[in-house]
Amino acid sequence: MQISVMTAGLLGTVISLIGLAFAWYQRGYVLAQAPGNEAMQKIANAIQRGAQAFLTREYRAVAVFVAIVALVLIGLSLVPNSGMSIWTAAAFVSGAVASGVAGYIGMYIAVRANVRTTQAASESLNKGLRVAFASGTVMGTVVVSLALLGICLLFVLFRELLQLDAATSASALAGFGFGGTSIAIFARVGGGIYTKAADVGADLVGKTEAGIPEDDPRNPATIADNVGDNVGDVAGMGSDLFESYASSIIAAVALAVPLAQVDAVRGLAAQVYPILVAAAGLLIGMASTFLVTTKEGATQEQLLGSLRRGVWTASGGVALAIIALAALLNLGTGIMIATLSGLIGGVAIGFFTEYYTSDTYRPTQALAESAVGGAGIVIIRGLALGMFSTLAPVVVVVLVTLIATVFGGLYGVAMAAVGMLATLGITLATDAYGPVADNAGGIAEMAHLPAEVRERTDALDSLGNTTAATGKGFAIGSAAMTALALIAAFITSVGLSDAPTTVAAVLLDPHLVTGLFIGSVLPFIFSGLTMLAVGNAAQGIVVEVRRQFKEIPGLMEGTAEPDYERCVAISTDNAIRQMIAPGLLAVSVPVVIGMLIVVGPRMGLAAFISSQTLIGVLLGSLVPSFMLAVMMANAGGAWDNAKKYIEAGHLGGKGSDAHKAAVVGDTVGDPFKDTAGPSLNILLKLLAIVSLVIAPLIANFS
Amino acid sequence: MQISVMTAGLLGTVISLIGLAFAWYQRGYVLAQAPGNEAMQKIANAIQRGAQAFLTREYRAVAVFVAIVALVLIGLSLVPNSGMSIWTAAAFVSGAVASGVAGYIGMYIAVRANVRTTQAASESLNKGLRVAFASGTVMGTVVVSLALLGICLLFVLFRELLQLDAATSASALAGFGFGGTSIAIFARVGGGIYTKAADVGADLVGKTEAGIPEDDPRNPATIADNVGDNVGDVAGMGSDLFESYASSIIAAVALAVPLAQVDAVRGLAAQVYPILVAAAGLLIGMASTFLVTTKEGATQEQLLGSLRRGVWTASGGVALAIIALAALLNLGTGIMIATLSGLIGGVAIGFFTEYYTSDTYRPTQALAESAVGGAGIVIIRGLALGMFSTLAPVVVVVLVTLIATVFGGLYGVAMAAVGMLATLGITLATDAYGPVADNAGGIAEMAHLPAEVRERTDALDSLGNTTAATGKGFAIGSAAMTALALIAAFITSVGLSDAPTTVAAVLLDPHLVTGLFIGSVLPFIFSGLTMLAVGNAAQGIVVEVRRQFKEIPGLMEGTAEPDYERCVAISTDNAIRQMIAPGLLAVSVPVVIGMLIVVGPRMGLAAFISSQTLIGVLLGSLVPSFMLAVMMANAGGAWDNAKKYIEAGHLGGKGSDAHKAAVVGDTVGDPFKDTAGPSLNILLKLLAIVSLVIAPLIANFS
Repeated sequence: MQISVMTAGLLGTVISLIGLAFAWYQRGYVLAQAPGNEAMQKIANAIQRGAQAFLTREYRAVAVFVAIVALVLIGLSLVPNSGMSIWTAAAFVSGAVASGVAGYIGMYIAVRANVRTTQAASESLNKGLRVAFASGTVMGTVVVSLALLGICLLFVLFRELLQLDAATSASALAGFGFGGTSIAIFARVGGGIYTKAADVGADLVGKTEAGIPEDDPRNPATIADNVGDNVGDVAGMGSDLFESYASSIIAAVALAVPLAQVDAVRGLAAQVYPILVAAAGLLIGMASTFLVTTKEGATQEQLLGSLRRGVWTASGGVALAIIALAALLNLGTGIMIATLSGLIGGVAIGFFTEYYTSDTYRPTQALAESAVGGAGIVIIRGLALGMFSTLAPVVVVVLVTLIATVFGGLYGVAMAAVGMLATLGITLATDAYGPVADNAGGIAEMAHLPAEVRERTDALDSLGNTTAATGKGFAIGSAAMTALALIAAFITSVGLSDAPTTVAAVLLDPHLVTGLFIGSVLPFIFSGLTMLAVGNAAQGIVVEVRRQFKEIPGLMEGTAEPDYERCVAISTDNAIRQMIAPGLLAVSVPVVIGMLIVVGPRMGLAAFISSQTLIGVLLGSLVPSFMLAVMMANAGGAWDNAKKYIEAGHLGGKGSDAHKAAVVGDTVGDPFKDTAGPSLNILLKLLAIVSLVIAPLIANFS
Repeated sequence: MQISVMTAGLLGTVISLIGLAFAWYQRGYVLAQAPGNEAMQKIANAIQRGAQAFLTREYRAVAVFVAIVALVLIGLSLVPNSGMSIWTAAAFVSGAVASGVAGYIGMYIAVRANVRTTQAASESLNKGLRVAFASGTVMGTVVVSLALLGICLLFVLFRELLQLDAATSASALAGFGFGGTSIAIFARVGGGIYTKAADVGADLVGKTEAGIPEDDPRNPATIADNVGDNVGDVAGMGSDLFESYASSIIAAVALAVPLAQVDAVRGLAAQVYPILVAAAGLLIGMASTFLVTTKEGATQEQLLGSLRRGVWTASGGVALAIIALAALLNLGTGIMIATLSGLIGGVAIGFFTEYYTSDTYRPTQALAESAVGGAGIVIIRGLALGMFSTLAPVVVVVLVTLIATVFGGLYGVAMAAVGMLATLGITLATDAYGPVADNAGGIAEMAHLPAEVRERTDALDSLGNTTAATGKGFAIGSAAMTALALIAAFITSVGLSDAPTTVAAVLLDPHLVTGLFIGSVLPFIFSGLTMLAVGNAAQGIVVEVRRQFKEIPGLMEGTAEPDYERCVAISTDNAIRQMIAPGLLAVSVPVVIGMLIVVGPRMGLAAFISSQTLIGVLLGSLVPSFMLAVMMANAGGAWDNAKKYIEAGHLGGKGSDAHKAAVVGDTVGDPFKDTAGPSLNILLKLLAIVSLVIAPLIANFS
C-alpha cells in the first residue's frame, strides 16, 4: 500500500491534535482536585511563583539567542548558492517555540499537581498516585504531540505546498530539531544548575550546619529546592526528550532521501514510516495510561507493577504497530527488525540503569556498605560503579547499531532511534511523575501535615526514584542513537554533493562506529577495575592495622613494635592478585577482536565485524583514555597539593574542617593519580602495539 | 650523507653501552654514601626486603604470562602463510626482559638511595639533593640505554644478519615494544594498587582514627607505604616510559618502510634517523645531569632552578641534534619541523600539568579554598578542575599532530613522539628522584631524626612533587603521540596488503584524528563548566541561608518566617547567569568549526582542516559524551540510593558515620546526575543537529 506525504502528514496532525485534547482532559482532571488547606496553598503558590519567574527569565534569555540564530540562518539563506533554505529559519523558530511551550505546560501542571497530590495522598495512596501520574501524562503527551504536530505540518508544508525537493526539505526540517535543541540545552543546563544549587545549598547549611531535617520550613532555601525539582526535572527533561524525539524522526526522513533516489516508491514509504510509527506510538501510549490504576492499600510492589503494566503494554502495542506498518508499506522485514531492535534496546538500557542504581540490587548495596570506610572510599567506589555501568549500555548501543545497519542500513539506525522513542508518551509520563511526588512530600513536611501523609508521599516519591532511573537510561540511550542517526544524515548530506563517496562510506561504516564505542568503554571499565582494586586492597590494610592497634599491647604508647611485615605481605598479596584482571583485560581485548576479525567472516559474520572494527577500537580507546588519564592525574595532583597548601597553614591549617575536607579529596585523588590514571597510559599504547604485532595475521587472513 | 643500518645500529649500541657504564658509575656514587645509623638501616632494610619481595612475586606472575604469550606468538608464526615471523616472539621476550631489568635496577638503587639521602640531608640540603638525583639518574639512564640497546641489536640482527625484508623486520621489532608493554601494564597496575592501598589504608586508620601523624613508626602500615613509593612510582613509571620510548622508535622505523618503497635512499635515512636522534638524546641527557648541582643553603627556587637548568639544557641540545641530523641525512626541513614540534609539545604539556596541579598557581589555590565548603564541594571542584585541565594537553596534541603530519606525513607523527621522548634520560631522572626524597623523609620520621633533617627532606620531597607533575604530563603526552604513531603503523600494515587504499587513507587522515580529539574534549570541558556552575550557585545559597539564620530573630525557634523569595531569586539569577557559558560553548563549537571548514581553505589552510575534521568532532564527542553521561547518571543515582538505603536503617542508619560519608557521596552525585550528566545528552545531539543544519553550506562552499 502506498501512502502519500499528504496523507501521512494529515494523519499525524490529526493524531497529535487528539493527543493535545487528551492532555487537556488530563489537565482538567488534575486542576479539578482539591488544592489542600491554606498553609499548603501558600507554599504551593510560592513554588508556582518561583518556577514561573525562573522560566520567564530563562525564556527571555533564550529568546534573544533564538532571535540571533534565526537572523543568522536567514542571512545564510540569502547568500547566493549557499544551499540553505529560508525555511530552515522558520522551522528553527517553530521548533524552539514548540519545545518551549511543551516545557512550560509541563511545568505549569506540575506546580499545580504537587499540592493536589499532597491533598489526595492525605485521602489515600491510590488517589495520590493518580493525581501525580495524570500530571506526568499531561507532560508526556504534550511533548510528543507538539513534536509530532510540528514535524507533520512542516513536512506537508515543505513537500506538498511549497514543493521543495526531498533533500532541501529534509535539511530545512533539521531546523525544527535545532530549535528544540536550543531550548533544551539552556533548559537542561539552567534548570540543572538551579535545582542542584538550591538542593546542595539547602542541605549544606540546613542539614549539616543547623541540624534541621530536609524540607524543614525554617530553612530559607526549601522553596527554592522545590522550585528546582520542577524547572530541572520537569521542564528540562521535557525539552531534552522533545528534541530526541523530533530529531530521530527528522534523521529518518533525511536518511530516506537517498533511498528515494534509487526507488521512488520505497523511498516515499521510508519517509512516511517514521511518522506513522510515531503517531501509532502516541495513540497506544495514551490508551495504556488508563492501565495505571491501583487498588486501595496497594504495596510498593503493586504500585510499581501498575506503572510497569502501562509501559509494557505500550511497548507490546508499539511492537505490533511497527510490524504491521512495515508490512503495510511493503518496507520488508529488514527495516522492521531494525526498528524493533531500537524498541528492545531502550527497554534493556532502562533495566540496566535500574540494576546499577536501585538499592534492591547488589551494586548500590555494596556502595552503601563501603560508606563504613568513610567518605573517600564511598566516592572512589561510586565513581568505579559509574564507570562499570557504562559497559551494558554500550553493548546495547553496539548491538542495536549493528543489527539496525546490517538489516536496514543507515536508515535502519534512524528507525531504531524512532522505535526506541515510540513509547515516549508514557515513559515520559512515569518520569515526570517523580518530581511531582517529590514536591508533594516537601509540601506535606512544610505544612506540618500528619506523619501518615508524609509516609504516603514518601512511598510515591520512592516509586518515582525507580522510574526516574529507567527514564534517565532511556534518555541517554535514545540520545546516542539519535545522534548516530544525525551524524549519518550529516555525512550523507555532505558526502552526496562533492566529497568522494568512498570517504563517506568509510566513515559511515558501522564497524568503525561500533569499534569506537567498544574502544571507548575500555578505559572506563579498566579505570573502574583499578580503582576498585585500590579500594579492596586498602580495606585489607585497614582491617590489619586496626587489629594490630587493638591486639598488640603497648603499641600506641611506643613500648612495643608493630608487625610491619604483615602489612607488607598483605599489600603484596592484594596488589598481585588484583593486578591480574585489569592486566589481562587490556591485553586480551585486541587479541580477541583480532581473532574475531579473522574467524568471524569464516563463520558468516562478515557484516558484523572487519578490520575496521579494530581500527575503531584503537581510535576509540586512545582518545578517551587520554582525557581520563589527564583528568585523573591533574585532579589527583591538585587535591594532593591543595591538602598540602592547607597543611602549610592556609585556611585554618592542619586539623581544621577545611583540612578534613581536603584529606577526603586527597583520598579520592590517590588512586586517580597513582593507579588508574598512569595505568591508562599503558592501556592506550598496549592496544595499539598488540594490534601492530598481529597486523600480518589480520592482513593475511581477513 | 648516507648512513647504513649497520653503522646506525652499531653507533646506537655503543652509545647505549656508554649509558649503562654511566649508570654503573652513578650507582657506585650512591652506594658509596654513608647509609646512616642502625635505626635508619633497619628501616631501610625492611623497605628493601618488602620491595624485593613484591617485585619477585610480580615478576614471577608476569613471567608466566610472558611465557604463554611467547608460545602463542611462536605458534602463530608456525601457521602457514600467517605472515608472522618467529623473531616476533624473540623480540617480545627481549622487550619483556629488558623492561623488567630496567624496572628492577631502578627499584634496587632507589631503595638504597633513600636512607643515604636521609643521611646526606642530615649533613646538608645540597648533598641530599645530589644523592637522590643520582639515584634518579641511574633509573633514567638505564631505561633509555636498555631500550635503545635492544632496538639497535634487533635492528642490526633482523636487517643485516638475517636479511629480513623491511616490512617483516618492522613487524618483528614491534614484538620488542609489546614485551615492554606486558611488563608495564602489570607493573603500573600492580605497583599502583600496592602503593595506594598501603597509603590510603595507613592514612585511614593512622591519621583519621588513631590520630597519629604520617610515617609514625607506631603505624604498622608505614613500611608498606614506603615500599609502595618504590614499586609504584619507580618501577612502574620506569617500565611505562621504557615502553613509550621503545615504541615511538619502533613506530618511526615501521612508518619509514613505505617511504623506502618510493625512494630507497630517503627511506633508509628515515629508518636510521629515529635511532640517531635517540642516541644523541641519551648522550646529551647524560652530559646535562652534571648541571644539576646547587650551592650550599640554596632556596627551594634555586633547587628547582638547578633541576630545570639540566632539563632545559638537554632540550636545547636535543633540538640542535634534531636539526643537525636531519640536515646530515638530507631528510629535509619538513621532518625536522615535525620532530621539533614533538620536543616542544612535551615541554608545553609538562608546563600545563604543573599549572593545574601546583599550589603556586590559581587552580589549586582555588581548590584549597573550596575545602571550606566541605568534602563534597572539594570533590566536585577537583573533578571539574581535572576536566578543564584536559583542554590544554589536547590542544597541544592536536597542534603537534597537525604540524607533524602536514610537514612530515605519518612518519612525522612518529618522529614527533621520538622528539618528545628524546630527553627522557634526564626527565625521568628528575621524576624518579621524587619517591627517593619521599622515602628519605619517611625514614627520617621513623628513625626519630632531628626536626631539621625532616625539614630538609620535606624541601626535597616538595621539589619532587613539582617535577613529578611535569613527568606525569610528559608520560601521558608521549603515550598519546606514541599510540597515534602505532595506530598509523598498524593501519599502514593492514592497509598495504589487501584493504582498499582509500580506506587506510580516510582513517589515517589527520583531520579525522584531530577532530576526534577536539570532539572528545568537549564533554569534559562542558561537564567541568556545569559542575563548577553548581558549585558556585550552591555557594550563593549557602551564604544567604547562613545570613538569614543569623540575622532573622526567632527563625530557628519557628516564631519568624524565613525570606524564601530571596533564595528563589538568588537561585534564579545564578542559574540563568551560569547557563550561558556552557550553552553557548555547545552551540558555537560546531558553528565555528563549520565556518573554519568553509573559510580555512580560502586562507590557504586546507592542509589543516576539512569537513572530515567536523565528522571527527561529531564522532569524537558522541562516544565519550555517552560514557560520561551514563557514568554520571548511574554513579549519582547509586550514591543517592545508597544514602537512602542507610537512612532506611541499614548500617547504623541516620546520623551514623556511614550516613555522613554517604551524604558526601550524594552531594557529589547531585550535580552528576541532575546537571552535568543529563546536559551531556543534549550536547551529543546538539553538535550533530547543528552540523546537519549547516551541511548544505559546507557541501556547497568547502
